[in-house]
Amino acid sequence: MIGLSSYAGVMESLMNSAEEQQPSTPLANSWSQIQESSKNQTPKCVGGFVLVHAGAGYHSESKAKEYKHVCKRACQRAVDRLKAGALAVEAVAAALVELEDSPFTNAGMGSNLNLSGEIECDASIMDGKSLHYGAVGAISGIKNPVLVANRLLSEAQKGKLSAGRIPPCFLVGRGAHDWAVSHGIPPCPSEKMASKFSLSAYKRNKRKMALAERIDTGHNQAKKRRQSSGNENGSGCLDTVGAVVIDLEGNVAAAVSSGGLAMKHPGRVGQAAHYGCGCWAENACSMNSHSTAVSTSGCGEHLIRTMLARECSAAMQSEDAHQALLEAMQNKFISSPFLAGEDRVLGGVIVLRCCRCVEPPPSQNIQGILVEFLWSHTTESMCVGYMSAQDSKAKVSFPVSLTSLSFNEFQLKFGYIET
Amino acid sequence: MIGLSSYAGVMESLMNSAEEQQPSTPLANSWSQIQESSKNQTPKCVGGFVLVHAGAGYHSESKAKEYKHVCKRACQRAVDRLKAGALAVEAVAAALVELEDSPFTNAGMGSNLNLSGEIECDASIMDGKSLHYGAVGAISGIKNPVLVANRLLSEAQKGKLSAGRIPPCFLVGRGAHDWAVSHGIPPCPSEKMASKFSLSAYKRNKRKMALAERIDTGHNQAKKRRQSSGNENGSGCLDTVGAVVIDLEGNVAAAVSSGGLAMKHPGRVGQAAHYGCGCWAENACSMNSHSTAVSTSGCGEHLIRTMLARECSAAMQSEDAHQALLEAMQNKFISSPFLAGEDRVLGGVIVLRCCRCVEPPPSQNIQGILVEFLWSHTTESMCVGYMSAQDSKAKVSFPVSLTSLSFNEFQLKFGYIET
Repeated sequence: MIGLSSYAGVMESLMNSAEEQQPSTPLANSWSQIQESSKNQTPKCVGGFVLVHAGAGYHSESKAKEYKHVCKRACQRAVDRLKAGALAVEAVAAALVELEDSPFTNAGMGSNLNLSGEIECDASIMDGKSLHYGAVGAISGIKNPVLVANRLLSEAQKGKLSAGRIPPCFLVGRGAHDWAVSHGIPPCPSEKMASKFSLSAYKRNKRKMALAERIDTGHNQAKKRRQSSGNENGSGCLDTVGAVVIDLEGNVAAAVSSGGLAMKHPGRVGQAAHYGCGCWAENACSMNSHSTAVSTSGCGEHLIRTMLARECSAAMQSEDAHQALLEAMQNKFISSPFLAGEDRVLGGVIVLRCCRCVEPPPSQNIQGILVEFLWSHTTESMCVGYMSAQDSKAKVSFPVSLTSLSFNEFQLKFGYIET
Repeated sequence: MIGLSSYAGVMESLMNSAEEQQPSTPLANSWSQIQESSKNQTPKCVGGFVLVHAGAGYHSESKAKEYKHVCKRACQRAVDRLKAGALAVEAVAAALVELEDSPFTNAGMGSNLNLSGEIECDASIMDGKSLHYGAVGAISGIKNPVLVANRLLSEAQKGKLSAGRIPPCFLVGRGAHDWAVSHGIPPCPSEKMASKFSLSAYKRNKRKMALAERIDTGHNQAKKRRQSSGNENGSGCLDTVGAVVIDLEGNVAAAVSSGGLAMKHPGRVGQAAHYGCGCWAENACSMNSHSTAVSTSGCGEHLIRTMLARECSAAMQSEDAHQALLEAMQNKFISSPFLAGEDRVLGGVIVLRCCRCVEPPPSQNIQGILVEFLWSHTTESMCVGYMSAQDSKAKVSFPVSLTSLSFNEFQLKFGYIET
């Protein structure tokens, strides 16, 4: 019962360090625009790219439009920051704030309610340049959990605390909330964070649970539990959000944010706050030719136990990104020995990789970055948006995989985005 | 400023499925004992091994004796369970309970106090057979956090909850406490969990912090933070505990438990509750010839960012365990790009690996398991105990690395433990 679809694109980003430009015959479409503009002025360094997701799950028609809008706005927010000279990690946080602020997504405002009717959020962010990481788990009363994660990251980069104490990279619960407030992040009354959607879903789920438990009464509960249908697990509520960004300097960053599974036990922490599971970002180094950034969505426990973000990142060092992602999703997730016995493996990833491997026109002192971006999911649908710093608006893709008995073939579409 | 020492041992464990025993010339010392005992009776299947640690850090002379005692008792507890036919995961939990119950270790009773003077514990457990995992973070008022982690693991193995909800593998804070109590684990008043040692350390640390912050006043704080000496970071309080076990059937399990860094921020979660960072266990499979189990100790943030438990486990598939651990500690921890900029990388690991690769005496229907166990640490000392199911008492090693300017050479000591 697994559908799998994907999209991949390639962008050539230009990092221009030339003082002087000489026109030459363009090697490819992608080079022409900047060469035109460079005839009369010192070319401005503009570059960068963002890819966002509003979750892998089931998306109703009514929500689809809202999801597309919020993905576009999130891309725009990140691009605005990139154009202002921000690093990838700042831009990715900006995209996440927009995604969290939507009452339609399951992150920040409008998050799923837990078993006690409360909102507890998870979020994390990783900077591929410093390899620093910040995360919050089961945090309540904070509108933008990603900003707390980001602040933890930046505080940790400052070095040790007083008396040589090591700064935390992961805070949970009340302590996370209090740390955020003491670092200038304003609290938000919990009742303001619930949306009419999350409240009505809570009531619906509460009824469903009561019914399911009445049916179970009199049966062998342990036996019953194993047989529960995977169709009931509220996959419509897996709308974790995330983003991956590359900036003008070629740094990558990734972030993820989630209200978690509907009707989760209070204190439950999902993949969005788990190192290596919710997001991953690593700049290229002597060991890795590609910079990679990954953000995941889906059932937290499945994504944790397979450490999917880090596995996909590692796979992206292969030559063929598309084939590598296909294999990673198949071998490290769907058929993973860590998920043996699970009747339905639910998840999606967005992936960005890049390398300084584009041959620039020989007469120009321009450094080229080849950016490839792709995504894949085993859920019914996944809403994805993307935008380069040169685009006037974001593109949105809302693939719905209707085949549920076999894999879709990966559909590889290379799109050269003009710079 | 890094000292590194290690120990490695090899045990041949016997899994005896013979109905009839014929005496033969022993191939090695390790075979002789069981052959003697098997002359007059059907040999009992006895096997299994446990390796425990009471933390990597600085251990005062006064504490050393207590640490040795508790390591021995923990080994005995695990071996008692193994002899009663328990699986590795049950035996490893039993060892952890003993380690947590000691007021001298920084886990369970007697844990470090956080900045607010409260005890918040982290613990996790992994079963190499099912690859299931359970963890609790920042949990208060529970005497044995590892029992909550273990209960999460076993509940998750039962399959879905009512209405198809996926059971949690990681709970934190108040929610974790309430889940534990609702699953029959008794609460323990927090004030009973502090020991005279943890209370006096708290007062001492509080004074040290106040002093450090007074000194900082008037200086550039941000600049000051970077320059803080690593010697002040309370490395005496890194006494996370852990254990790795192999049972008679050849299954492995690992667990870890910690009160966390002294004076940590409330809500801070360390490696002991982080998947892949605090412990790891994986039975041999078609992909891996060796079963591996790892438990870590040290500075949580360093162990999280390097995902040390999983890295060491992966390294253990190499032919030479000793060389593989040396390289993993050097390349994946001490020189890890994830810890670039850290002036002192603090951590230790205990590692167990095994394979069904011992040639039994040709005339006997005995299946041999080769068990190798080793440990390594960059801290001043690490207290380790180990015991096989055939031993009458545990052995304890308390290596103290006094060279602090360069690495010690790995000291490889192979000890065939007679079965």
